[in-house]
This record gives sequence, structure tokens and C-alpha cells, in this order.
Amino acid sequence: MGLYFEEFTTALRVVTRGRTVGEGDITLFSGLSGDFNPLHVDAEYCATTPFQERIAHGPLTLAMAIGLMSQQNLIDATTMGLLDLNWSFAGPVRIGDTVHAVVTCTETRPTRKPDRGIVTLRLDVVNQRGEQVQTGHLKLLMKRRHQDVSDA
Amino acid sequence: MGLYFEEFTTALRVVTRGRTVGEGDITLFSGLSGDFNPLHVDAEYCATTPFQERIAHGPLTLAMAIGLMSQQNLIDATTMGLLDLNWSFAGPVRIGDTVHAVVTCTETRPTRKPDRGIVTLRLDVVNQRGEQVQTGHLKLLMKRRHQDVSDA
Amino acid sequence: MGLYFEEFTTALRVVTRGRTVGEGDITLFSGLSGDFNPLHVDAEYCATTPFQERIAHGPLTLAMAIGLMSQQNLIDATTMGLLDLNWSFAGPVRIGDTVHAVVTCTETRPTRKPDRGIVTLRLDVVNQRGEQVQTGHLKLLMKRRHQDVSDA
Amino acid sequence: MGLYFEEFTTALRVVTRGRTVGEGDITLFSGLSGDFNPLHVDAEYCATTPFQERIAHGPLTLAMAIGLMSQQNLIDATTMGLLDLNWSFAGPVRIGDTVHAVVTCTETRPTRKPDRGIVTLRLDVVNQRGEQVQTGHLKLLMKRRHQDVSDA
Amino acid sequence: MGLYFEEFTTALRVVTRGRTVGEGDITLFSGLSGDFNPLHVDAEYCATTPFQERIAHGPLTLAMAIGLMSQQNLIDATTMGLLDLNWSFAGPVRIGDTVHAVVTCTETRPTRKPDRGIVTLRLDVVNQRGEQVQTGHLKLLMKRRHQDVSDA
Amino acid sequence: MGLYFEEFTTALRVVTRGRTVGEGDITLFSGLSGDFNPLHVDAEYCATTPFQERIAHGPLTLAMAIGLMSQQNLIDATTMGLLDLNWSFAGPVRIGDTVHAVVTCTETRPTRKPDRGIVTLRLDVVNQRGEQVQTGHLKLLMKRRHQDVSDA
Repeated sequence: MGLYFEEFTTALRVVTRGRTVGEGDITLFSGLSGDFNPLHVDAEYCATTPFQERIAHGPLTLAMAIGLMSQQNLIDATTMGLLDLNWSFAGPVRIGDTVHAVVTCTETRPTRKPDRGIVTLRLDVVNQRGEQVQTGHLKLLMKRRHQDVSDA
Repeated sequence: MGLYFEEFTTALRVVTRGRTVGEGDITLFSGLSGDFNPLHVDAEYCATTPFQERIAHGPLTLAMAIGLMSQQNLIDATTMGLLDLNWSFAGPVRIGDTVHAVVTCTETRPTRKPDRGIVTLRLDVVNQRGEQVQTGHLKLLMKRRHQDVSDA
Repeated sequence: MGLYFEEFTTALRVVTRGRTVGEGDITLFSGLSGDFNPLHVDAEYCATTPFQERIAHGPLTLAMAIGLMSQQNLIDATTMGLLDLNWSFAGPVRIGDTVHAVVTCTETRPTRKPDRGIVTLRLDVVNQRGEQVQTGHLKLLMKRRHQDVSDA
Repeated sequence: MGLYFEEFTTALRVVTRGRTVGEGDITLFSGLSGDFNPLHVDAEYCATTPFQERIAHGPLTLAMAIGLMSQQNLIDATTMGLLDLNWSFAGPVRIGDTVHAVVTCTETRPTRKPDRGIVTLRLDVVNQRGEQVQTGHLKLLMKRRHQDVSDA
Repeated sequence: MGLYFEEFTTALRVVTRGRTVGEGDITLFSGLSGDFNPLHVDAEYCATTPFQERIAHGPLTLAMAIGLMSQQNLIDATTMGLLDLNWSFAGPVRIGDTVHAVVTCTETRPTRKPDRGIVTLRLDVVNQRGEQVQTGHLKLLMKRRHQDVSDA
Repeated sequence: MGLYFEEFTTALRVVTRGRTVGEGDITLFSGLSGDFNPLHVDAEYCATTPFQERIAHGPLTLAMAIGLMSQQNLIDATTMGLLDLNWSFAGPVRIGDTVHAVVTCTETRPTRKPDRGIVTLRLDVVNQRGEQVQTGHLKLLMKRRHQDVSDA
């Protein structure tokens, strides 16, 4: 199970495992999202761009980074929902690149309801050459383990 | 083909087609992202939450909204890349819900390089009951049709 | 292994097994083909059509019918390629329908090359209520088992 | 939205975007269709054929060509259904090939019902070397924008 | 990261999270495995069997149970490979069932090589009604944290 | 259709067709099983292991071997269920490897119920270099063609 609100502190720093992004992932994501932008599905078009080759959809890498974080058992079954997402895309993820995420907690904030709190996690997504390809923040509603009665 | 930088104005307003979110979409997204949070894959767990049933991953609906926008031929082959994404998740998308997006342009900004500009699009994601389930902004680098030489 | 050219006669008649078409099949085919026609992906739109609900892409059922035929080991490893396909779509295949195909051979034709011949197969695709939903013909280039030397 | 019956003329000519066919597309289509012909899934077998390597299922490329056409917003939400399909397979599509389609309208025909008409589209599927790999015709039932009352 | 050889004892007992098996999972597994047995893909046929409806492939539930175990971070990055698998299938998993696994360690055995050892894990797969649907054992080669030099 | 109980003898020996294992198969199986062990999804990690590169999940190859057997029409529609599975994993299956199975029948055993019997099949899974990568046994409950009345 994931961590409860009280267990998140700004000392938290977790390096996830890695994941190699394959051509099939990009194809599948094109179909799932319905986003067939030629940057992702047309190798001939891509040869005319600065990328030279097909690149992963930004939101695919974003989704994989959240998945890698999820596999660290930080939030599963203790989150009540994702509130907010802010994400910057710094560089391309190419077919065959391997990404991982560095997860840190940048803020914890109690709410009026005593059984929950808001946690902001920062994810730095890094490729196999150490290049930071994405940076993002997730604002999550997390369960508290011990209900804060004074807060009620 | 999509629109060029000059063709985006704050008058732009496009209502996309709709898309029904199926159980298989959620399953496939779990696998593609690696995010097996019980809110998405465990119906027994979900019965104990306010949602009562499995809900779509927020980033899955986000990805589908971008896909629906893409199918309007607003940005394909004229975008040079996604720079930034800010997204708020207001309500759940359940299995069988049908979402569409209302796309508006909130800002256009020239860049130092005369062959491109930055466009901010707002996507309001709405379900079949007219409930706004997500709102987000995409900052996109767009090609200019006519290179602005005075800017060079 | 499949049959050789000489083994096909107009007496051939094979009833394939059945296959139930699921929502996930339609979703996956939308993504694989890139065909997001609202008849297949938007339940709200479909409620305004005579179909009332999402229907399978015609070419999806066509592909499944060929797959069902393939599972009868009629052509695998003895075909040299598909030459031609003619297909009529008589009625919708809905989510949950189970289709099978009745395969008959309507023509066999030698070619100038003695190691091969052309076989035309007819597929009648039938649903669980006995309704014929599609009818099609495949023209296939098949290997001969015994090379016809007089033909060389 | 797509075009209405009245908007189709034999002057129509649309060149679609391109799509690169990946190994994962072929694998996924094998599973979706149930067609595991060794020409598509067994590299060792293929090395003994004139193709030398696995090739895409003909109906997969066909489906992708229809998808590419669909992405041009020619028929979505204005078609009432696919009636008929005739397709010739001229050459193989290999892993990594990029195909696009040239869509022309070869015939429009009113029907007895005044709210619709039949449109025949021709799709020429071309690979990155300019080779025509498939040619096909789709007969589609299209909505009329203005109901032809004299015809009622 | 998972546990090292020394950390496995017969006291280990982990209850995994749950996973709901969807129709789309069965369809996808049919395609991935190439196993289109009518018990899994033909609802009409299944109506004539004691199961009455399509059931999951045994090896699909097996794979999901291993996945659920994997998500507990017991073996990832500390296993050197799966040696052996013994599995009994006691009852069907139907569309919509939710399964979880109870993982226990039944044996640990050093090997001649001092940097590794063999661990046997038992998985009891249980559905939402508490019925044990599968029981299996996995024999895994695990890394040792501290190389046992006396063993060398 | 498959064979009935009486048709299985220890003389049975079937060599299946082959199947090439692609990167997309491994990715899809990771998602379907939820097993994201770095041996299967992280090329950077794998470069530090004796395998040097990502390998297929053992249960994926197992599932494909059963699928290849199923495509020989040995058990489809005559099996009443899979009872038991014992499998040994002797060597890795790498991206691009082509596997087939040699199926033999090692035991047939009547049951108390006269309409069925138990058949044990052995599958030897072999790659394109002739290396045996897996060996397994399946115990299947099979229908009898002719009910053995003396047994009732």
C-alpha cells in the first residue's frame, strides 16, 4: 500500500525503476488517445523535422512516469484522486530510450476535512543519458492514517 | 493539415466529436502506463470508495481529449512540439461515459525565431451529462506560414 | 498446414468456429486503423442513428472472418498471398454479437507458372441469429503440391 | 465533420497523411483478427519466401488506409454506413514501410430515399518509394445536407 | 526493489491487491497467445457448457497473479530468473471477477554458487467470493545480498 | 475441431508452426499481466545482466506455445478445461527469437465419469537455433466421443 498523508514530507526522494519506450508503446498510445500526429506515426515526415525520427507523445512519457512512481507503492490505495497536473516537456523521448523518474515531495497541505490532505509530488523524468526530458508536478488528495479530530 | 501560428486567434472555438470510454481503454492504459492503482483496476476496492466503481485514469481522459482535438486537424503537421501542460481534474470519468472537448485559444505569442510562435489552447472536457470533468491548457510551439522577416 | 491448389474444389464447404465481438475489439481496431468514425466510438452519437448503439467497423468483422477461416488451417503456409478482396456489408455487427463464417470455394484457376494457382473463396459471415451480415470473396495465390510440368 | 453527399464530386482528390507500419501493428492485428498466417508472424518461415521477411496483413494496410482517409474528415458523422469494398493487393507492405492514400471520388449516385446518396471513393495506397501497393474502392451511403423533396 | 535470497523465510506471507478481469483482457490475451479456444472467445458455444459464459484463459489469470505479486516489490530487480512453475486450476475466472493472490514462501535453498539461491513461492489465487481458483508454485533464482564466501 | 479423448495416444507427435516474439508482445504482456520486472521492460538494467538485453516473460512464451498448439486444432471445442500445468524454463527468449513447440501425448487416463478423460500433453518449446528453451506438461480434461457406458 501507498503512504498516508502524514508520511509525506519534503525529505521524501524516490528514484523509480526504468522503462524502455518501444515503438509498440507509441503505436498503442496513438490508438488509445486517437492522436495520430505525424511526429509520432509517420517516419517519413519525421525525417524532415529536427527530431529526424518518430518521438513518443509527451503525455505517453508522462503516463509512464506516473506508472513508474505507482510501482514504488507511494500512492496506491491511499490516494483519493488526482487533483492537478502541471508538466513541462523539455526534450524528446525517442524509440528505444529508457526513462525513469525522480520523485520528490514539494508540499503537504491539510484540508478542512480531517481525514485527508493534499500532497504535491514533483517528478523529474530522466533518460538513459541523464538528460531531464520532462518535469512535472502532481497534486494528489491523500488519505490520512489518523483522523485529525481537532481539525474537524 | 493543422493551422499555422497566424491562424490561431482568441476567436477560435472548436467542439470536438465525442468518445466513449470503455473498460478495455482503462485496462489498456493501465498496462501502457504501468499504473495499476486500484481505483482503475479493482472493482471490489472501488465499491468501498465514493466512486463505487472503477474510474478512468485522469491522464487517459487527458490523452483522449488531446486526441479528439487532434482529429479536428488543428495542429497536426503544423506543431513543432508540446511545451507545457496544465490540467485540473474536476470529476471522475466512469466506464461508459462519453467525453468531448471544447477547444479555445487563450493566447498567441511570437517568439524570437521568426518561423514559429507559441499558442495556448484551453480544453474543457465535458461528459454526456454536460458536466465539466477536466479543464486544461496546452502550450504548443507552432509553425508560422509566412516567416516574419522583420523579426529575424 | 493449409491445403494446396489441387486440394481446393467447389465441393469444399467449411463452417468456422464462432467469435464474439467485444467492445474492446472495436476500441482496439479504432486505434490500429486510426478510424474513429463516431459510429464506432461515440455511444451518444450512435443513439441518434438507426443502429442505436456502437457497431463494429466493417473491416474488423471482415478481418475476424478471415481469421476464423485461417484457424481452420485452409491456407496457412500454402498461400503465397492475397490478390483480391470483394466484400459486401449487409448488416451491422453489434457489441456482443457472435459471428462465424461459412467458407466455400467458388473457382480454381491454373496460372502460367506451374507451381501455383488461383483459388477464389467465398465467405458468408453469419451472426448468432442466423443473419448474414457480410458476404465476400477472396482471391488467393496458392502453392501447388505437385508442379505441373506440362504447364511449364 | 465529413462531407455530405452533395459535396462529393469527381473533382475530389485528397492526399492523406502517412503512417509507418510497425511490427507491433502486425502483431496486434494478428491477435485482433485471429489470423496467424506465418507470412505475418514467423520470421523464419518468411526467410524462405520471396518476401524474405514478415509482411503486413493485406487487410491491416486496407484498414489503415481507411483510417488515414477518415482522419481527413471526409466521411465522419456524414456516412450512414459502408456498403461495399473492392480491393486489389499489388505488393507487400513490410515492417517500417510508410503508407499514405490518395483518395478520389469516382461516382456519386442518388438513391430513391431523398435524404441520402451513394458515393464511391477510390483509394490508392502508396508506400514511401512511391510504389502503389494497394488499390481499392469503397461504396458508402452518405447523408444529404438538403433533402431532395422532388425525389421523395 | 525486491527481496534478496536471505530475506525470504517461510514466515513470509503477502496478500496482494486485487484485479478485475475484463472482457478486453481475455480478448487481448487470446490475441497475444494465439489461443482462440471457444471457451474464451465464443459466447454462443460457452452457453452450451457448464460455464455458461466465456471464461479467462487459465494462463491469463496465472500471469495476472504473478503481476500482482510483482507489484508488491518482492522480486523485481533481485530475481535472476524463473526456473519452474507448477500450477493447478481449480475453478473458472469469469468476466468481471476480481482476483488477488496470497503469496507465501515454502522453501529456500542455497545453491553451489555463493551469489544466489533458490526460493519457492506459493501463490493462492482467490476471487471476490473467497473461492480459491488457482494454486501454484514458482521456483525463482534470487540474488543474495551478501555473498556467502564459505560456500564458494 | 480438436481431438476427443479416445483419439489421443502416446503416438501423437505434432510440430507446431513458429512465432516470432516481438518487442511489442513483451510490452503488451507486461501490461496485461502487470509484471514490469526490469528483465522485461528496462533495457539499461538488462545490459547489466547476463542476458544483456530484455527477455520475454517466461509465462508469455508458455502462453504462445499453448496458442501454437491450439492452432493445430488438437483441443479446441473438445477440451472441458485445463487442470494442471508444470513448466520448466531452460533458457531465455529474446526479442526477435522465433519459437515453435513439439507436442507429444505422454498419458491418457479415464475418469469415473464416462463422458470424459484426462490427457497429458508435453510441449517442448524450441527456438530458431534448435535450443530447447522451455519444457512443460499440460493436464487437460477432454470430452470422449463415445460415452463408455460400462464405465457409468
